[in-house]
Order: sequence, then structure tokens, then C-alpha cells
Amino acid sequence: MIEVLPVEGIPEVHPGDEIADLIAARIDLRDGDVVVVTQKVVSKAEDRLEKVADGEERLRLIERESVRVLRRRDELVISETQQGFVCANAGVDLSNVDAGVAALLPVDADRSARHIRDALAARTGVIVAVVVSDTFGRPWRRGVVDVALGCAGVAAIVDLRGTADTRGRALQATEVALADELASAAELVMGKDRDVPVAVVRGVDRSWLRESSVKAEVVRPHNEDLFR
Amino acid sequence: MIEVLPVEGIPEVHPGDEIADLIAARIDLRDGDVVVVTQKVVSKAEDRLEKVADGEERLRLIERESVRVLRRRDELVISETQQGFVCANAGVDLSNVDAGVAALLPVDADRSARHIRDALAARTGVIVAVVVSDTFGRPWRRGVVDVALGCAGVAAIVDLRGTADTRGRALQATEVALADELASAAELVMGKDRDVPVAVVRGVDRSWLRESSVKAEVVRPHNEDLFR
Repeated sequence: MIEVLPVEGIPEVHPGDEIADLIAARIDLRDGDVVVVTQKVVSKAEDRLEKVADGEERLRLIERESVRVLRRRDELVISETQQGFVCANAGVDLSNVDAGVAALLPVDADRSARHIRDALAARTGVIVAVVVSDTFGRPWRRGVVDVALGCAGVAAIVDLRGTADTRGRALQATEVALADELASAAELVMGKDRDVPVAVVRGVDRSWLRESSVKAEVVRPHNEDLFR
Repeated sequence: MIEVLPVEGIPEVHPGDEIADLIAARIDLRDGDVVVVTQKVVSKAEDRLEKVADGEERLRLIERESVRVLRRRDELVISETQQGFVCANAGVDLSNVDAGVAALLPVDADRSARHIRDALAARTGVIVAVVVSDTFGRPWRRGVVDVALGCAGVAAIVDLRGTADTRGRALQATEVALADELASAAELVMGKDRDVPVAVVRGVDRSWLRESSVKAEVVRPHNEDLFR
């Protein structure tokens, strides 16, 4: 069984805050827990905030954060970010921040995850995994889902290729994007209209706990990609 | 808190089997549970199985199940299926079925979900929701995740647009693909190399439980789509 626990009562996060402290004060973590933290609070703690006076300034910010624009329609820009993610508006986000301020994606969300993990270990002595999540749209399917921007201590991808299915036949195409599924599971207790930016996924398979990186394992290289 | 429970011990499913009976015999369901069932066992119960002698026959099957091919590379076909899903190989799947047999997608997975839901209610008196899940790749991100092909009794999309964020500002783009996130959460206890085709997500927000449809709410119409 897996449990997904919301971490309630996290206060407003400000630049310089140690997110690990805010979490550790509110939940008793256990070894092997996966702590999922939304990008928004990570970006605030890391001061990835910029003033935007109007829509035009926001658009310039989106262009600055992008290395390549894939599609545009009205106010929507689908682009590849400096970090290699393909998403709407380069992750530049106006919700749950002060008016006139935009939150940018963390510069290196794997590093952000490692930092929170290390700080939690230092403070509590407990070894957890951390996923930094964000909310992305998808082509072909309506609605947004939470995915992983970065991770530490848990496999971004679990590679089941070459292992046998229950009939002993080799499995095809079964690299499971575990960190993305953990982010989506965590979102079920977060909600967009509630103030729950952190959740804990408890009871995951121990074999999934290893050093990993979303950037290295999930971001698809151009030469593999059929849609860029 | 949300719990994700594997339903262990589901036997091999054959055409004509009532999946609800196999589930009800193995777990005590509660009102409001979301029962996630993988496409593979649904396709078997519905006899969506076809003989495929070789790769060429499989390719013909993929083409027959497709209404439009988006990309091809080597043995990989990305196409839009008759049901409106964009996925690899039109969902024609050779894993966990007998050699020389391919499992096709259910004709109407929303209907499949409704059938399982109604049969569970008739057998147990418990009103659950049902999601039929499958494993899809994504452009731009490596690895596969489980998504919803069909649902019954739970919102495919939770529409938070227009509701306020914690600062009272209107939220942008927050139609959450709930059924997809439920499918991904369930996958965490299923595993591709274990024989767990059913999981229960317990403790979801009661406001999410309503009549819904993946086909009507999630499949993105062509005129909204930037990548087709």
C-alpha cells in the first residue's frame, strides 16, 4: 500500500527560507518517504521572482526563459525552456504570487531537490527522497497533470525493459516515468485552490530509491524526439 | 490522506469474464473508492484480442486501428486511434498476452468503466468510481505514465478555472486531468513486471465523484490541438 499525505500549514514562503525546516516542523518523516514539493514554493525560496508590469513584459520574460518556441496561439506560448522542458509559457507563472510578480522555474530543479533532501537529513536524520513538481499541459489530452521538474534520491525512470512480463516474454517500452507519477499522485492531496504545496508519498518500493536526475533521465534529447 | 491499495491475486482474465466479480472477491470496497483497472484485463474480458503472426500483420492491425498517423520511426507508429487517443502503435499490445496474440484497446473505455462500476454496485451494493488505465509515452519526456482511457463516477477533469487561488486572484489554466492522475497513482502499486492489474485509490475528495467521460472531457478536439 502507498499513502499520500498532505503536509498542511506550510506558511507563505519567502526568498531565503529553508523549505526543509518548514516541512520538518509539520510532519514526522520516515526513511524512504518521497517528499513532493511544488515548484512555486521552491521558486519563492530561491528568489526566482521577477516583477512584471503587464502582459508585454511577461511575454518578454517568457521569451528570455525559452531557447526555442514550438507553437503560439493567442496568449499561449509552447516553448522549450533553458532547462529543456517543453511547457506553456516557459513555466512563467502568475498564480499564487503577489500581483505584478511572476515566478520562474528553478534554475536546476534536481539541485533544488538535492538541497531539500540534504537539509531534511541534516535536520531530522531521516533519509527521504524529494521530487520538485510542476503542472504541465499535454498535447492531445485536455487538462493539466503534475510532473517532476527535479528529483533526488528516487529514480526518475524505472527501467523495466528486458525484464520479463508475467509470461516470461521480454517487455517492450516499459521505462516508467516514476518521478512524474509520484508528482501526479501527490497532486491528488494538494489541489490548486488549497494551500498545500507539499505532500509525502509513503510506502514506495525500496528498489526505486537511488540517485537520479530528471534532467539526465526524463528530458528527451532532440535526436530522440518526434515532436520538436 | 489518500491510500493506494493493490488488488492482489487477480487471476488470468479470459473473454467473457466479469472483472467486477474478480475484484469484489479480493477486496472490501467502500463507497467513494476509485477502482483503477488496466486496459489489458479489460481488453481480455471484452475479447479485444487478435492473432498476429508476425510484425507485418501487427503493422496492418495498427493501421486498421488508426484514423491518422502522426509520426513513424522504425517500428514505432504514433497515431490517432479510432477512440481519439494519440499513442504509440494504436495501443496494439503484445505484452502479457499469449504469443501470437495482440490486445487492442477497448472499443469504448468509458462504457467499459461504467460496466465494471454497475457490476460492482450490483454485486456489492457499494458505489465506487472506475478508471480504465493504459500506459502512454509522451513527446518531450522519456518514460511512460499511466493515463485514463475511460472513467465512470469520477471527474475526468476537475475544473478549477475561475475559482480563486489563495490570494483571491483568478486561477489560469487549472483544469486538472484528475482521471489521468488517478491512473498514475494506481500504477505505483501495480508495476509492469508484477501481476497486479487492479488498484484502489481510497480517500479522494467527494466533490470529484460525478458522472464523467474521458472521451468527452479529455480527448482534445482537433481545433484546440497545436500538435496534430
